[in-house]
Amino acid sequence: MKQFISVHDVKNINALVEKALMYKADPFKDRTLGADKRIGLLFLNPSLRTRLSTQVAASNLGMEAIVFNVDKEGWALEFEEGAIMSGSSVEHIKDAAPILGSYFDILCIRTFPSLKNREDDYSELYISQFIKYCGVPVISLESATLHPLQSLTDIVTITEELQKSKIKNQKSKPKIVLTWAPHVKALPQCVANSFAQWINAWGEADFVITHPEDYELSEQFTKGATIILNQDEALKDADFVYVKNWSTYKDYGKIYENDPRWMLTEEKLKLTNNAKVMHCLPVRRNVELSDEVLDSVNSIVTQQAGNRVWAAQSVISEILRTL
Amino acid sequence: MKQFISVHDVKNINALVEKALMYKADPFKDRTLGADKRIGLLFLNPSLRTRLSTQVAASNLGMEAIVFNVDKEGWALEFEEGAIMSGSSVEHIKDAAPILGSYFDILCIRTFPSLKNREDDYSELYISQFIKYCGVPVISLESATLHPLQSLTDIVTITEELQKSKIKNQKSKPKIVLTWAPHVKALPQCVANSFAQWINAWGEADFVITHPEDYELSEQFTKGATIILNQDEALKDADFVYVKNWSTYKDYGKIYENDPRWMLTEEKLKLTNNAKVMHCLPVRRNVELSDEVLDSVNSIVTQQAGNRVWAAQSVISEILRTL
Amino acid sequence: MKQFISVHDVKNINALVEKALMYKADPFKDRTLGADKRIGLLFLNPSLRTRLSTQVAASNLGMEAIVFNVDKEGWALEFEEGAIMSGSSVEHIKDAAPILGSYFDILCIRTFPSLKNREDDYSELYISQFIKYCGVPVISLESATLHPLQSLTDIVTITEELQKSKIKNQKSKPKIVLTWAPHVKALPQCVANSFAQWINAWGEADFVITHPEDYELSEQFTKGATIILNQDEALKDADFVYVKNWSTYKDYGKIYENDPRWMLTEEKLKLTNNAKVMHCLPVRRNVELSDEVLDSVNSIVTQQAGNRVWAAQSVISEILRTL
Repeated sequence: MKQFISVHDVKNINALVEKALMYKADPFKDRTLGADKRIGLLFLNPSLRTRLSTQVAASNLGMEAIVFNVDKEGWALEFEEGAIMSGSSVEHIKDAAPILGSYFDILCIRTFPSLKNREDDYSELYISQFIKYCGVPVISLESATLHPLQSLTDIVTITEELQKSKIKNQKSKPKIVLTWAPHVKALPQCVANSFAQWINAWGEADFVITHPEDYELSEQFTKGATIILNQDEALKDADFVYVKNWSTYKDYGKIYENDPRWMLTEEKLKLTNNAKVMHCLPVRRNVELSDEVLDSVNSIVTQQAGNRVWAAQSVISEILRTL
Repeated sequence: MKQFISVHDVKNINALVEKALMYKADPFKDRTLGADKRIGLLFLNPSLRTRLSTQVAASNLGMEAIVFNVDKEGWALEFEEGAIMSGSSVEHIKDAAPILGSYFDILCIRTFPSLKNREDDYSELYISQFIKYCGVPVISLESATLHPLQSLTDIVTITEELQKSKIKNQKSKPKIVLTWAPHVKALPQCVANSFAQWINAWGEADFVITHPEDYELSEQFTKGATIILNQDEALKDADFVYVKNWSTYKDYGKIYENDPRWMLTEEKLKLTNNAKVMHCLPVRRNVELSDEVLDSVNSIVTQQAGNRVWAAQSVISEILRTL
Repeated sequence: MKQFISVHDVKNINALVEKALMYKADPFKDRTLGADKRIGLLFLNPSLRTRLSTQVAASNLGMEAIVFNVDKEGWALEFEEGAIMSGSSVEHIKDAAPILGSYFDILCIRTFPSLKNREDDYSELYISQFIKYCGVPVISLESATLHPLQSLTDIVTITEELQKSKIKNQKSKPKIVLTWAPHVKALPQCVANSFAQWINAWGEADFVITHPEDYELSEQFTKGATIILNQDEALKDADFVYVKNWSTYKDYGKIYENDPRWMLTEEKLKLTNNAKVMHCLPVRRNVELSDEVLDSVNSIVTQQAGNRVWAAQSVISEILRTL
């Protein structure tokens, strides 16, 4: 693997998942694989789980991880080609990226969407420019439209649960429902886009997406999934429910409604096949999901977030082998 | 030791002190004790000495320390049970803490009081919720009401001084005076509370606390100490003077007065038994203590701050042995 | 070497340069030299290249580097002797520095000029106080008036280029031109001062400085260089052009003019001997230098920034040998 930006960089999803589970069983198995190698973690916006889990993953492989919070510690980067830099941006990505590439063997970067201009965001200008100029393998820690390490983690977690319950559940394919949930802020579509892209590529689930009218995601990611606008109907017999808010895609970056009836409650959970409940966190309690659901045995959000380490370790190890 | 939140977690103060002094003499004695273990340092407010000394202590034990400044790098945490999170707090401690517990073997956290609502602050909601949900041993790097690593350091420093001077000083018990000092801001009672709690539990000193009227600390910490409102009288024949400002406890979090006559000066020091002068730092020069005192041979504040490393190393090593 | 604050701390520039190039060829040659040693990196203002390159350099020598962003994570330091600290500064350098010296074996510090009061800035109060009180070797990561690690890097890069081209270029000494460039903000004179100081001390170049009227640098650094106010004339036959903005020195810290004709363009480059173009970065594209120049084969700015690691490693290793 030469980079990790989307599911298209992965030849065999299940092999990567199994590797993650192998590291979960034996974290220090490849403790010298990253010796004398350095990984740089650049954050253009804040992160808790992503930052810490990636640091731990790198360290398990014997690599040194160095974090740089561009927004807090550094300065505004310019991404436009040909810009006359007489404004507030202090350095062009064309100048910063190759230097970071000379200091590190692998670079991880978190960028984010403006949620103002869809074309700009969906062009993935920031991460693309970074990849173009830095000259070393790049791992996305979330970009304007995707969050691939989260999605790999999600499939790791689903696989883990399926392996636990394989005797009880004889259905050939689990039913996985991605449901929109209310939120107080306009959020990116990244996690939902990426989850849809990965589950579709994985191909081992009956995959349903449910959301209010006007909250359609881009078909480039959802194609292959069944879209059902009635949440109750969608949740029926689900084995996994992935709860996530996103802002509108068509009339871009808006909050059209925040109907609390879309919050996942115990009542809703009764419609499912005693589904496991997932969320990428951070979660707004009693807005997206009720306390009852989050504190129930159905919730696997902590296990899911814990698995971020093993997903990251699996990806880093694959890239290390190509250096 | 399963956690380090207050003196109540310590079975034998002197044993912990001796261990700290042992590490001071030989920092790398247990250099592999923390191998493959990780310690997370969470700061909800800024820190210099505490952060750096704990990082160094962990590293001396072969552990990797990862720092996370929640206020700067992360987001506002919610601590109230049952909160409907439609406001500004982004993540509930119930969700964040267990994940941090899954990434780290030991967690250190610094929280702080509001100084607005005494009951809330003295309930220690933040650190208690964190301990309740994280599932791994917790070390307090200062909480709303206590600062146990500072107090352990203080007794390490006093012990060190007593050992140096044991031939000269034949008194059975040293006299230790904790004196209030003026300051420009309303400060927590943590350092004073904690020092009182530890010196009382240690039991090897004549312990006097002096402060202006209305600056009484909570009796749960001071019980056992002699309270004298006249500073000059209190300082008489002191072997150690610990200088510290705190805001009012009864009419909570206020500054009642800032009488410069409470500043510790050379003149005041003459009343003592050539006392060693301590302060946890940072210190407001010429407000809390005069330059003359801080720059004199009586001041042991640098030695005291240096000892932060050995106190932290002693505590971490005790917790490591239980993992 | 006991400290690294200016060229005056260096006995033999070429030996230090050769050592840097040796580390570039073999980064892990002295991988255990810094074992059990710690280096603290204090930033009073933000840094990207300096921070990361110094961390990497220390790590190559087996040292642990701990970063502390004083401005972001800590608090305002007081530097004035005798200050009555009843204002906003939280801690005096006299108290903070010796403690940092007790936690670390080597301390690096970045300070900055006010650009308001020339005498204050040129007295180098901040770094001088820090050196005076910390008690361990200090490396400047840029001070109010100088940036010695940058200048060492610059000579490393020039030397590298001269070695590459030594057959082609039979001139005894290369011509190096430091040219002022427009900028949108008032910048320190540090990089220019320091480059002038080092190139003059090195003595292996024909050294020309060109700038608009009123932009004279301090003679204590430029003495020995030829000053030419006509940029075109200065650039003639140059082998290296170092582009840098600085604010006025005489009428201190001002922007007198921002004439775009001082921007280094392809047209200007034709006047030179196909010169290599240098800049310390970050660079304002199409303000200081044109895209055409920065993206041409003449630009060695990425190589130059990459060399920051080897210059830092060379300096740290020299100081380690004295501990």
